[in-house]
Amino acid sequence: MSREKTFFTAGPAELYPTFEKHLQQAVNEQVGSISHRSAAYKKIHQHTDEQLRQLFGIPAESAIMFTGSASEIWERILLNLVELESFHLINGSFSKKFYEYAIQLKKYAHKLEKPMGEGFSYDEPEIPEFTELICATHNETSTGVQMREPDIQRLKRSNYGRLLAVDMVSSAPIPDLDYNLIDTAFFSVQKAFGMPAGLGVWIANEACLEKSLKIKASEKENLHIGAHHDLPTLWEMSKKFQTPSTPNVLWIYILGKIAEDMNEIGVENIRKETDAKAKMIYDFLEESVLLHPSVKHVPHRSRTVAVANSVIDSSIIMDKLKAKNMIIGAGYGPNKNSQIRIANFPATSMEKTEQLIEALRQLEP
Amino acid sequence: MSREKTFFTAGPAELYPTFEKHLQQAVNEQVGSISHRSAAYKKIHQHTDEQLRQLFGIPAESAIMFTGSASEIWERILLNLVELESFHLINGSFSKKFYEYAIQLKKYAHKLEKPMGEGFSYDEPEIPEFTELICATHNETSTGVQMREPDIQRLKRSNYGRLLAVDMVSSAPIPDLDYNLIDTAFFSVQKAFGMPAGLGVWIANEACLEKSLKIKASEKENLHIGAHHDLPTLWEMSKKFQTPSTPNVLWIYILGKIAEDMNEIGVENIRKETDAKAKMIYDFLEESVLLHPSVKHVPHRSRTVAVANSVIDSSIIMDKLKAKNMIIGAGYGPNKNSQIRIANFPATSMEKTEQLIEALRQLEP
Repeated sequence: MSREKTFFTAGPAELYPTFEKHLQQAVNEQVGSISHRSAAYKKIHQHTDEQLRQLFGIPAESAIMFTGSASEIWERILLNLVELESFHLINGSFSKKFYEYAIQLKKYAHKLEKPMGEGFSYDEPEIPEFTELICATHNETSTGVQMREPDIQRLKRSNYGRLLAVDMVSSAPIPDLDYNLIDTAFFSVQKAFGMPAGLGVWIANEACLEKSLKIKASEKENLHIGAHHDLPTLWEMSKKFQTPSTPNVLWIYILGKIAEDMNEIGVENIRKETDAKAKMIYDFLEESVLLHPSVKHVPHRSRTVAVANSVIDSSIIMDKLKAKNMIIGAGYGPNKNSQIRIANFPATSMEKTEQLIEALRQLEP
Repeated sequence: MSREKTFFTAGPAELYPTFEKHLQQAVNEQVGSISHRSAAYKKIHQHTDEQLRQLFGIPAESAIMFTGSASEIWERILLNLVELESFHLINGSFSKKFYEYAIQLKKYAHKLEKPMGEGFSYDEPEIPEFTELICATHNETSTGVQMREPDIQRLKRSNYGRLLAVDMVSSAPIPDLDYNLIDTAFFSVQKAFGMPAGLGVWIANEACLEKSLKIKASEKENLHIGAHHDLPTLWEMSKKFQTPSTPNVLWIYILGKIAEDMNEIGVENIRKETDAKAKMIYDFLEESVLLHPSVKHVPHRSRTVAVANSVIDSSIIMDKLKAKNMIIGAGYGPNKNSQIRIANFPATSMEKTEQLIEALRQLEP
């Protein structure tokens, strides 16, 4: 079934083309009623685990764990992987929120902050001496800035003694990251997986588990790793294709099905199509009179969320597109009326992207 | 549409009869793609808030907040409402887990523990002097024991200086609690609301907010109220019909619709039908040769989850019912094979309950 509107929003976003089919099948199979302790559930969990492992290239030793959201994972990472000090690369509102979580959790959080629209390359950050965890954001949804995978990974190579966390909330599975190298990464399903919100996915390696067990054993007053979704419990359960408490079973089921669909297409093909669509979008923005790419440094331009400065009030552009049933995002926060954001997720096909650009072109003076 | 199997399980459970209709409508309205910062979302959130407020009789000053699960709320309550000491009434595995969360969060947690199958009346618990929060469980899913609402409320009346939290995970909206009296309560949607799992609902009053702000302001090392879904942030956003991060929009939408359906029936009528079905179930268990009510003290027998001791291996009974497309629950934990659990939620009608009892009757020797 094709619905009226197409969402080029950064998440919640356009639903993956097969979403409804899988949802209907789940309803028919009464997946919403089965016990999360049943063999039927374990089979669903295992399928999703295996499909994600294949799609991302996650080593067998690492764990794939489910939470309520990616924001929850920010907190879980900070509680479980940082006893004292974290370091944050900030280039937008979401990487900043990750940092602010650390402050609220009373960690000694260090930061390196860029002006909005600028990103990080490898050789920039100087890591404070006692940093236990480096937090990098692959894709900043608020500014449309990405940090290239090789730059992220070189950061780890220069800091083997520290853990590295990668926020890939609004890009996974597009970034080609080496999960033998980075320690932990996470995403939510309402972005590039084209699902409704309500599920976060947390990938972590054994070094993370070790660290969380060390903090757990500490006798310091009030120092804890959390009680709900602490890493050791999530880890242990995930290895049995289980969760500590009742999870969003339906979304875990559908995520496995969509990951399977993506594996059938091949993640490399999805990445290529994403790049081709991103090129179309940025090529248009480069030549547009009304809209200009807000990220000047080309390698830092996000492949999955393009942000453009608008010469006119961006709500006018959004309204004109809305009249054609195309929904794009406003600028984030203070840039609400001066920018637009266009998500470039797998759910919006080449054809739909062409239609969007054509509609934008017609607005040009 | 009627699906093959009927789930008399304690959650995930049988879906509410209107669930599929609301799901289809949500899909048609593309609710899974709308921005959680849009006016459309706020309208959905407000509708759900209003319907729940009406259904439960929640005062305007209190907040209704959404999380990923009820287990998450255990943790949020302990972080936000307890600086040092909590007190737990334990009469089964879930109230025990609430207590264990407190220990893991390094609170000084006190407990009063009953043998499995026994419950609490008002005059039993002696509350330790420095208790800040009393944790009671209205319905223990693991043992089928309930604590009567008047007994819970008298506990608050005798302890005005302390906060009272009520776990009503597997009974809401059946208990008739006075939200002008109790401070906080919570549930998840995969029980009596007949929805798939993935959403927790947290009700709290201004005394809770005040306490969390006090703990937040503390300068004690490592003492914090959490960063994701901390009470002050959840509270503030909920009053604007918003959430701090992207919530499970689809489930919030459907919860509002089901609460509206329930309001149309009238919560008193739902409670009466629940009592009538519970009576049928317990009457049968009282006369059965194979099955006996596991809770001896009649006022402590749960209205929403009946637990029975089985003379034979309970898996035999479960399998026989399964062959008739009726799914009941096994005993919890160590009682897996010696007990059965029958959920009595609004989604299983009087007629379906009669069919279940008839099927059980046919197994009698």
